[in-house]
Order: sequence, then structure tokens, then C-alpha cells
Amino acid sequence: MNSEQDLINYLKRFKIYNKKIITAIGDDCSIIKFDNKKKYVFTTDTSLLGPHFTNDYSPEEIGHKTLATNISDIASMGCTPLYAMYALTLPKMSSSWIKKFFKGTKFLLDKYKITIIGGDTTKGPLSVTIQLVGVQHKNILTRDGAKIGDDIYVTGTIGGARAALISKKGSESYKYFKKYLVKPEPRVKVGLELSNFANSCIDISDGLAKDLKNITDASKKGFVVDIDSIPTNLKFKHFIKPAYREECILGGGEDYELCFTANRKNISKINYIKDKYKTKITKIGYITSSRQKYIKCGKTYKVKVKGYDHFQS
Amino acid sequence: MNSEQDLINYLKRFKIYNKKIITAIGDDCSIIKFDNKKKYVFTTDTSLLGPHFTNDYSPEEIGHKTLATNISDIASMGCTPLYAMYALTLPKMSSSWIKKFFKGTKFLLDKYKITIIGGDTTKGPLSVTIQLVGVQHKNILTRDGAKIGDDIYVTGTIGGARAALISKKGSESYKYFKKYLVKPEPRVKVGLELSNFANSCIDISDGLAKDLKNITDASKKGFVVDIDSIPTNLKFKHFIKPAYREECILGGGEDYELCFTANRKNISKINYIKDKYKTKITKIGYITSSRQKYIKCGKTYKVKVKGYDHFQS
Repeated sequence: MNSEQDLINYLKRFKIYNKKIITAIGDDCSIIKFDNKKKYVFTTDTSLLGPHFTNDYSPEEIGHKTLATNISDIASMGCTPLYAMYALTLPKMSSSWIKKFFKGTKFLLDKYKITIIGGDTTKGPLSVTIQLVGVQHKNILTRDGAKIGDDIYVTGTIGGARAALISKKGSESYKYFKKYLVKPEPRVKVGLELSNFANSCIDISDGLAKDLKNITDASKKGFVVDIDSIPTNLKFKHFIKPAYREECILGGGEDYELCFTANRKNISKINYIKDKYKTKITKIGYITSSRQKYIKCGKTYKVKVKGYDHFQS
Repeated sequence: MNSEQDLINYLKRFKIYNKKIITAIGDDCSIIKFDNKKKYVFTTDTSLLGPHFTNDYSPEEIGHKTLATNISDIASMGCTPLYAMYALTLPKMSSSWIKKFFKGTKFLLDKYKITIIGGDTTKGPLSVTIQLVGVQHKNILTRDGAKIGDDIYVTGTIGGARAALISKKGSESYKYFKKYLVKPEPRVKVGLELSNFANSCIDISDGLAKDLKNITDASKKGFVVDIDSIPTNLKFKHFIKPAYREECILGGGEDYELCFTANRKNISKINYIKDKYKTKITKIGYITSSRQKYIKCGKTYKVKVKGYDHFQS
């Protein structure tokens, strides 16, 4: 066992005792039936000082980002977030820190009408584990539904969070890209719209290359992606040198945009979503039967980055 | 905000957006309706190196204890555990450690037919956060249902975990009491039986004095408890000096026994449970209208211990 994926594969062999479990381990969320009407999705994510936020994050920013990243997993399933549980490990009980932290969660709690239903507090090195429960809207979007010929799309722009990470703290570039890193906005509403017609979906948390591979591996398909078509912020090329661009676009995670596949007959629905939510949605390639292929300037291109893994970085 | 209770009180003021939430923050579990048939309970607990386990715990023991303490919260609600999510923070990805850890969970997963539905892995100081979902059996037992005149009972014996903690590592006393500390057995089956008639229930995780106070505070009642009637292991008095006994019995947490209240007309049901599960269940006092009173040798006794709080110990 060397990677998170190895651990996931190990846990997938554990016994499933209950017929109401539709999907246990292996997607952004697990899927559970409680009654015959709606299915529910469950996700959990831990955020730590170091890999997920740094000392220069304000408590408000930590509050926002830790919740946003969990909501993003619900959004990628095309579901509505409902209930949150907070397991907080805090170095000390500071009223001021805690109030600022939860102030940072308020925008998202209110926007999506999420209720904090419980939690736990422990004394130790700062760590935030959130569990979120969401509910089915239309279809639940999973990683394994991509069909041959589907177009591959991404929302928003890609690579902004990594652009901030590799920029020098305090630099113009860092100031410009910081919003992508500390204030990601989960794509809940777009996810709900996509649940009407998309065939597969994932949120870009570990890097586009790794996350798209998760879709095509789960779907037992391949892809062709045109690297030049991957949308970046207008100032991306101004600030980020060519040598670092691939790392930001394909290897950098934490964009929390959605990557999804859909039959091309849905193009008018996608245009409707773009207009309604003033959201960029860009076609970056299409699903094939098996080979995973990137092209650049019309030629096959070998991608060097691997995407984020906590135990291999 | 100085204590866990202050944080709980702060979070209790947050908005509840959904009518399906019966209880959010304030009991061992939150209670959610998903359909009209059954209610579900949710709990989460973080266990850390230091407060919850020490370096001499084997990975198997950590696996068992972290799951047992979460199951105990479901047991105290009189519910059946169903689904677990694991958020693991690990210093390194060690196959051997992980396999031993999950081997330690297997006894309880199999015994209660609990399915691991998902999780997250992060690199950092060892920390185990488990979220458990359980389902209603008969009534859901809460802290706030104690009635004047109810008898107060505890299952098993009290103080064993703390007896191990205050004993010198390697001593005869430590060896004798270690099982209470590292291998607690959640009282699921007794909890399910109690859900037929008990008025209130809590699991003893922070010390009997604190946990019983949680019942009577939530129920807006008082109690009289005869300290001499609190059951301890047969060798407790042999190993533990008089000066430390109160700390073990009333202040020491981690017993994971149940403390419940029930109308005395249920005595035959309690005897039935004792016989069926070969479980000690002992009356230690009764519920009054307001005053919280301990007696010892027939006289009012002032209790000095406060129970465990991560931020005040």
C-alpha cells in the first residue's frame, strides 16, 4: 500500500452488509437509499495545516475553504447539500478563532441552507474534518458513466489554485490568484443542472489529469484531450512561465471546478446553463474506447504530471 | 468560550434549515428523519494520540477502540449502528499498520454488521475521525427524558478505564485494568432493549459525574446517587487506593457503559436484560426535582471531580 488509491482498493474489499448501500467506497460520495423516493450521498474530508491551508490563511478563510471542498464533492454528484458534522481538533479553545472560523462558513451554510447537525472537539494540532450529507436532485452523477463519444467539459478556469501555490507569497501573481486557492466556490447549482443529462462527473480536487483519469478508469473508457483548449484565467499566461503551466493546468488540484462528460446532443442545455449561471463551460475533449491521449498543437503529447496524492508528493 | 460545552452552546444557536432534523446539536447523536418509518442517528468522534490512545496501543487496539467509542454513542441512543465513514490522518502509508488497524475493527464491524461506506486519508499526525450512522429500533433514547422518581442505573462496572490510566505501566494493576481502557465493548444490545422502556440514557465517556449531570441538566431535574452503590470491578479496591477511587468512579471517563433512568415498574424488564445478556445492571440512585446530591455512608457527600473536558484538563 503506497498511495491513497491502494487504501481505497483495500477498503473496497470489505463486506457490504446492507442492501440500501448503492455505492460504498470509490466515488466522490457514497450513495445510500433511505426510502423509495430519494437517495442520499455522504462525503468526508479532512483539512490540515500544511497540505490544505497555511499559516497565512485567516480563520474565516479556513472556515470557508474546508466547507467549500466538502460541498464540492456533493456538487460533483449533482446533489443538494443538507447536513454537516464538524470534527474539530484545535490547539486551544479560542472564542475569537472559533467565531471567525464559523463566520467563514456562514456564506456557504446560508447560500445552500446547510445545517450543522453535530460534531466533536478535541485538543491537538489544528485539523478540520467535515462530513456532509446531500440529497439526490435528478440523476446522481458518478465517475463510471462516461460513454464513448461523450464530450468532456470543465466549468470555470483551471490551474488558478496551483498558480497561487507556486507564486511567491506577496507577489503580484500570488495576490491575483489567491482567490482561487483560499476561496473556491463549489459548483452546486451547475451540478444540479447537470444531473438532468450528464453521463459522468467529478470535481477537480487532485488535478485535472488525475481526476479525468478517475472518470475514464471507472468508466473503463479512454479520452482525447486537447491541452490548448483547457480554459485558464486571462492573466494565467501573463503570470505563469511556460515551464510551470502544465503543472498548474493538469497536475494542480484544488480548483474545485467540475469535469463532466455528456452526449453532444445536450449542447443547447449546456449553453442554457452557461447563460443562466454566467458560468464558463468549455469542451476540452471527448471519450474514446480505451486509449488516454493528450494532444497539443495537433500532435500527441506526453503528460508528465501525476496529480496530488498525500502519500506520494 | 473555555470548554467544549461553551462551543456546543455556541453552535446550538446556528440556524436549522430542515424540518427533518429532530435533534441537531446537544445529545450523543443528532436525530434525522428520512422517511416516515424510521429515524436515523448521526455521530462523529475524533481520537488522537495522547488523549485517546498512547504509543503502547497496538494498531489493532486503536482500530477497536476508535470504533467502539463511536458505536457507544449509537448504543446510548438505543439505536442500531449501520454505516461508518473513516477520516484517517496517518504519518505515513504503512500497509502493515493499516491492515492491523482495520483487523482491529473487524470484530465490531462483523458483530454489528456495520459497513464502511467511505472516508478520506491525509498525511499528518495520527488521528482517527469516524462518523457513524445508526437507525432507530424502538424509542430513541435521549438525555432529556428523565422523570422525577426514575431509578438511575449503570451497566457493567465503573472506573476500570481510569484505574488503568492511573496505574503504572507494566504494573499488576495496569495489566489487570488495561482491558477496560483499550478494549471497551459498546452496549448495543442492552441499548436496544432499553429503547423499549428507558426514559433517558447516555454513555459514560467523560466520567459518571459529568455524564449523569448531562442527563439531569438536559431533563431539568436533580438526582440522589449513593456512591457506595456504584459497581466496580471485584479487584478495584484491592488495586486502587482510597484517595484515587472517587476520581476513577466519578471523574474517569472512557468506561463506555450506559447510564440510564427508568420508572421502577420496569424492574422485571431490567432483570430480564441482566439474565439474557449476562450483564450487570445496578441501581445507583434516583431522579429528583432539582437538587444534585451524592450520599456516602448515608450522609451527603461533596464530589470533587469534574469529568473530562479536552480544554480544561
